[in-house]
Amino acid sequence: MKQKIRYATVGLGHIAQTAVLPAFKHTENSELAALVTGNSGKDRELSERYSVRAYAYADLENAVAEQQVDAVYIATPNSLHREYTERAARAGAHVLCEKPMATTEEDCEAMMRAAEENKVKLMIAYRLHFNDANLRAVELAQSGDLGELRYFSSLFGLQVNAGNIRVRKDLGGGTLYDIGIYCINAARYLFRDEPIEVVGLTASNGEERFSEIEEMTGALLRFPRERLAVFTCSFGSTDVAQYDLVGTKGRLRLENIYQSAKTGRTVRVEPVPKRRRPDLEMKIKRPPIEQPELVGGSAPHQG
Amino acid sequence: MKQKIRYATVGLGHIAQTAVLPAFKHTENSELAALVTGNSGKDRELSERYSVRAYAYADLENAVAEQQVDAVYIATPNSLHREYTERAARAGAHVLCEKPMATTEEDCEAMMRAAEENKVKLMIAYRLHFNDANLRAVELAQSGDLGELRYFSSLFGLQVNAGNIRVRKDLGGGTLYDIGIYCINAARYLFRDEPIEVVGLTASNGEERFSEIEEMTGALLRFPRERLAVFTCSFGSTDVAQYDLVGTKGRLRLENIYQSAKTGRTVRVEPVPKRRRPDLEMKIKRPPIEQPELVGGSAPHQG
Repeated sequence: MKQKIRYATVGLGHIAQTAVLPAFKHTENSELAALVTGNSGKDRELSERYSVRAYAYADLENAVAEQQVDAVYIATPNSLHREYTERAARAGAHVLCEKPMATTEEDCEAMMRAAEENKVKLMIAYRLHFNDANLRAVELAQSGDLGELRYFSSLFGLQVNAGNIRVRKDLGGGTLYDIGIYCINAARYLFRDEPIEVVGLTASNGEERFSEIEEMTGALLRFPRERLAVFTCSFGSTDVAQYDLVGTKGRLRLENIYQSAKTGRTVRVEPVPKRRRPDLEMKIKRPPIEQPELVGGSAPHQG
Repeated sequence: MKQKIRYATVGLGHIAQTAVLPAFKHTENSELAALVTGNSGKDRELSERYSVRAYAYADLENAVAEQQVDAVYIATPNSLHREYTERAARAGAHVLCEKPMATTEEDCEAMMRAAEENKVKLMIAYRLHFNDANLRAVELAQSGDLGELRYFSSLFGLQVNAGNIRVRKDLGGGTLYDIGIYCINAARYLFRDEPIEVVGLTASNGEERFSEIEEMTGALLRFPRERLAVFTCSFGSTDVAQYDLVGTKGRLRLENIYQSAKTGRTVRVEPVPKRRRPDLEMKIKRPPIEQPELVGGSAPHQG
């Protein structure tokens, strides 16, 4: 029998407790090997629940060595993604990191450098492009039935409460980092291309919960072949999650799946080469997890 | 019995022949008094069909005087709206002008000045905001059921053939002037406000039909109360006509009703005071016209 990949989960917040940890129950090629957390209050209970040892953040390297960890799943606040990716890579562990990769280009490049230098794999845990409806949309977009693809439009909105990690600047919160990335990614995997120009606006209605980050972001992106993508993402609206893709001959809309701009100026984006993009072959079906009881009152972290 | 308003229709292209002229059959307060055209080939046939005298463009002033014209309906190419508005106003006729008002701010202001100086009324013949579905949307947006209105998104696309007046720069063609204005207007009458900032991108796929004007325009607008509006309008896609309005508590979508950016820089927009906006009281119901046979092979002009 093939040996399973042994994961240490780093960060035990909402996404780890509600999605990552319980999902190991259904993995065929992976198993949970250790927990790494900065919150000692959560250690014991989760350690017992999942029958693995818990380590402090400072002891990540020990966890990797002592528990024969092959890979880490980084579920810390966004602002810590770089640090734990670099440390895990130096310790020889592959890295699967929660979205967004990081909140600055500099951090992202440092993470890629760390993975390269230490010869480990680095992957960001986006999941929506593996969703069945999205893979079908990708297939339809590629089929020619829509003609030449011309423009994309997406809305992604929800209400986020004051104090939530998503509206805390020091922890890497923000509409673009948390949900706008889904809109950008959808345009990327539908167009099978990378944006080359972007312009946008942010807005805030003045409520206390939006004192650190913007209420919403609107952006327009130019893609190669003169395609346009536009989206609005918001932490202050009713739930909305949709995209429209319009071609010369047809159009498609996806609803309830999901849906750059600090300045008002156009920003040129350097093209990024891309080897492989999401397609139907990548689909893996696993049973849904049962929701476990939360430990330590974690606020929701990820969309 | 109340006297009817006597109209001269200026310009006998597609919109005049398919919409304006036949509509006089159902007007209660208006009647057709004269035709004014630059195309003598259309004169006789339309003059006979509607039993009114036809004048050349140069004789607009004579038409107003001889036929006791109270108002002109200007259905010329966009680039001529200013000239015929100014001449009609100087001749003492009120002006109902096809959309868009004009293609430059300078022309629009000159038209308003001409109307003021000559004490005549000037109205632009937008109609979609009098459409029943749009008036219901306005009512719903104002009802509070959506909570505070936060953002608006619209797509308006269609295929326009080479040579059509809509893709001719010298005649005032362009996606923004022809259909983008509907998106902007929808945001204005739903938000009941005027935009204060705009940023956008245009794109063209290189086809010959888009050699004079852009294939499409995407734009983001900021409205007072930190509301955002975004739209994409295109002459090179399959038909799409929709908008979404999203509030803090609810959302609405209108489909199949309808649908600024030369530079990539943000443009500040001076607020414009507004006295009255579309509401349900303005609704007037008239029977549909029967489509008459076209004279002179006019290409479609208006959306």
